[in-house]
Amino acid sequence: MPEEIAPWITFRPEIKVLDCSIRDGGLMNNHMFEDETVRRVYEANIAAGVDYMEMGYKGSKDIYAPSEYGGWKRSSEDDIRRIVGDNDTPIKLSVMADAERTDYHTDILPCEDSVLDLIRVATYIHQIPTAVDMTKDAKDKGYEVTINLMAVCSVQDRELEQALETFCETDVDTIYLLDSWGTFYSEQIEDLAKRYLKHMEGTGKELGIHAHNNQQLAFANTIEAIIRGANRVDATMMGIGRGAGNCPMELLIGFLKNPKFHLRPILQCIQDIIVPLREEMEWGYTVPYAITGQLTQHPRTAMALRASEDKDEYVRFYDECTTSDE
Amino acid sequence: MPEEIAPWITFRPEIKVLDCSIRDGGLMNNHMFEDETVRRVYEANIAAGVDYMEMGYKGSKDIYAPSEYGGWKRSSEDDIRRIVGDNDTPIKLSVMADAERTDYHTDILPCEDSVLDLIRVATYIHQIPTAVDMTKDAKDKGYEVTINLMAVCSVQDRELEQALETFCETDVDTIYLLDSWGTFYSEQIEDLAKRYLKHMEGTGKELGIHAHNNQQLAFANTIEAIIRGANRVDATMMGIGRGAGNCPMELLIGFLKNPKFHLRPILQCIQDIIVPLREEMEWGYTVPYAITGQLTQHPRTAMALRASEDKDEYVRFYDECTTSDE
Repeated sequence: MPEEIAPWITFRPEIKVLDCSIRDGGLMNNHMFEDETVRRVYEANIAAGVDYMEMGYKGSKDIYAPSEYGGWKRSSEDDIRRIVGDNDTPIKLSVMADAERTDYHTDILPCEDSVLDLIRVATYIHQIPTAVDMTKDAKDKGYEVTINLMAVCSVQDRELEQALETFCETDVDTIYLLDSWGTFYSEQIEDLAKRYLKHMEGTGKELGIHAHNNQQLAFANTIEAIIRGANRVDATMMGIGRGAGNCPMELLIGFLKNPKFHLRPILQCIQDIIVPLREEMEWGYTVPYAITGQLTQHPRTAMALRASEDKDEYVRFYDECTTSDE
Repeated sequence: MPEEIAPWITFRPEIKVLDCSIRDGGLMNNHMFEDETVRRVYEANIAAGVDYMEMGYKGSKDIYAPSEYGGWKRSSEDDIRRIVGDNDTPIKLSVMADAERTDYHTDILPCEDSVLDLIRVATYIHQIPTAVDMTKDAKDKGYEVTINLMAVCSVQDRELEQALETFCETDVDTIYLLDSWGTFYSEQIEDLAKRYLKHMEGTGKELGIHAHNNQQLAFANTIEAIIRGANRVDATMMGIGRGAGNCPMELLIGFLKNPKFHLRPILQCIQDIIVPLREEMEWGYTVPYAITGQLTQHPRTAMALRASEDKDEYVRFYDECTTSDE
């Protein structure tokens, strides 16, 4: 078979790409994007043939007050329609709904009344019963649904096995493998993807991948997950996202080679919208993220460092991160 | 065997690291590093347990005039000793010698008269007879020797097979796999590493890896080569190097986990020396490098763009790179 000689010059038509620039990038500016920014990303995704775009979070209005958080943390139907109208385009739209931080019974409308197509439920290991209830609510309302288990790097194997078993008993369409802290090497992605897929065998569910770039491995780990069978793939414009950011869309599109994808609109959007944004807010790899990634720590300390005047005090930061106090 | 459960928490003692910050980084500032910069990198490498440090190029004085190129393009014995004295330390020192651009008969001293330990011969596919003669010269003079075939991405398979066969007939200690244009994905690195190693079987030679970061894959591809058997690994401080730069030392040291390596001195050097340098000169991933990497093109056009006022004109650059004119 020709595939075995040089498989990287072919493509896999099953792979679908989700842009989460506004959703994950919002974690760096309290979700305060201008409408024009969101609109230009939306138009670029359509022109580029991207399959899904995430229109922010469906956060609880009680938890995320407008005085502190921009609208894309609580994306309402009106907010989204202000950008997309009735979304009379091929792209599908999603929001992320965090377990225990979403008033899902009221804030997620029936699918037929919404311009949204997909609800992505994000959960920590201790929130799974709530998350499963949220997936059921969204499925009952008619949505495509994913479940995204965060911070897998801090979950013990037997708990992960139980979680995957539980997820496989739900009606979710996709189970996402997340490298929330940017801590995994390719061998670990391979190992985890195999575990996920073993549980999912015969269920018809798809495997997704969402990677962070703390060790400059977001794109590489995304490729690794694709090689192992992931068909749902997250990326963002020029890697915009929390801390070290995500898998860059401009790299992913080049790798996938499916003729339905087009790089040029992505480049136009980055040039016009994302580069100027990068002057105002920081994201992307810097040394402190390498340190927290290597140590399997949440990047919040690195983010705080980068937002301070001591942003390049790497040695002191390393000493603080590695102090034994348990 | 425990290795099969989670091999990434162990380490492989055979792996040796070479720092080429000054050599590859010199391609971005015409090799005009201050002595203090070179000295601080040297001291950091010693403290970190790095095995080799490359002290620039052994470029021909006729080709590289001092009026245009800094001293680290023609590193003389005196230049190097000005930094390292007699190098009474565990670190070994190397220079890179480009085929057809090095007066090797005269400029490479007998090993016993030099503070250098290793000569790395860099060659394009059409220069191999010269390169082989250079390896013989260096071996006869008593050095450890590597051969580094550049731009492998533009070499046809049958020529590569012939080159590897030729290299295996020499006395070189290490054959390097190079991703000069930052164009390879992990599958290609795997494929190439297997080809190299198949030829090298039984010769006792080691495989090396030198990767560029055009697609944010320098570290990932270095890991891939290590997994496939590479035991000689290039890295640079905060990725400093030509264009998109190289595999970052701070990431590699964290991955290797050999207790002989220490991250803290690397961080100190980056904080004190490399971050200020980054204010003066640009290296590292930007979108134009993604474009040339995806297109298997030399990054020189991307470097020229980044040095111009149009540095963020990605779409026009993409159009220029993709214009058919053959």
